[in-house]
Amino acid sequence: MTVSTPSLSELLRLDDGVLPAACPSRVVLDHVTSRWGVLLLVALSDGTLRWGELRRRVEGISEKMLAQTLRVLEADGFVRRDAQPTIPPRVDYSLTDRGREITELLIPLMHWIVQHAEDIVGAGD
Amino acid sequence: MTVSTPSLSELLRLDDGVLPAACPSRVVLDHVTSRWGVLLLVALSDGTLRWGELRRRVEGISEKMLAQTLRVLEADGFVRRDAQPTIPPRVDYSLTDRGREITELLIPLMHWIVQHAEDIVGAGD
Repeated sequence: MTVSTPSLSELLRLDDGVLPAACPSRVVLDHVTSRWGVLLLVALSDGTLRWGELRRRVEGISEKMLAQTLRVLEADGFVRRDAQPTIPPRVDYSLTDRGREITELLIPLMHWIVQHAEDIVGAGD
Repeated sequence: MTVSTPSLSELLRLDDGVLPAACPSRVVLDHVTSRWGVLLLVALSDGTLRWGELRRRVEGISEKMLAQTLRVLEADGFVRRDAQPTIPPRVDYSLTDRGREITELLIPLMHWIVQHAEDIVGAGD
């Protein structure tokens, strides 16, 4: 008998709760919001980068995590990998159209975090 | 000697790369984009919920992860915990103003993911 305006969950078609456990959205959410996933996508928002450039820009990422995260983002269609047939070989990474779409939604989030992080982390002092 | 328009990284004041490793933003990013962090924030966007309601709505979360993630979100000032002095005791969880701000940025991201997840996860088939 309750009448209510559509809730955010309903707008998100999350009728059975927030993303049912078996839902593909959970998989994509995990990929996109993994710490390194977010940082790599945002790094690539400035344009094409090579392996070594990515490694430097995303400070603290290991070779292993860089390789692994790039593979996931490539398999999901967010990142394009272009191996140039040069000597020495050169591999360029860039955002696909899909990668640009999601990164445009990540940027405002990152912006907010950068602006507020010191207040938040310092709050417990 | 290079002259360039401000890049997204510059707009985000990420001059030394995408969030230097020692930066508080990394900490907050980890909290907000942890799988359960995102799902709990989005669940609470509909309004105040009790422990058991949160547990049901965020399918698959364990008691331990629910307690742990709520503690982190509360310490960061995203979630308010109100213990009602009733018998039996009742504890309500809701978003603070800060929690609402960040959740408003997470909602479009979740929306996009829900809309595209099947295409993305199915892409490898």
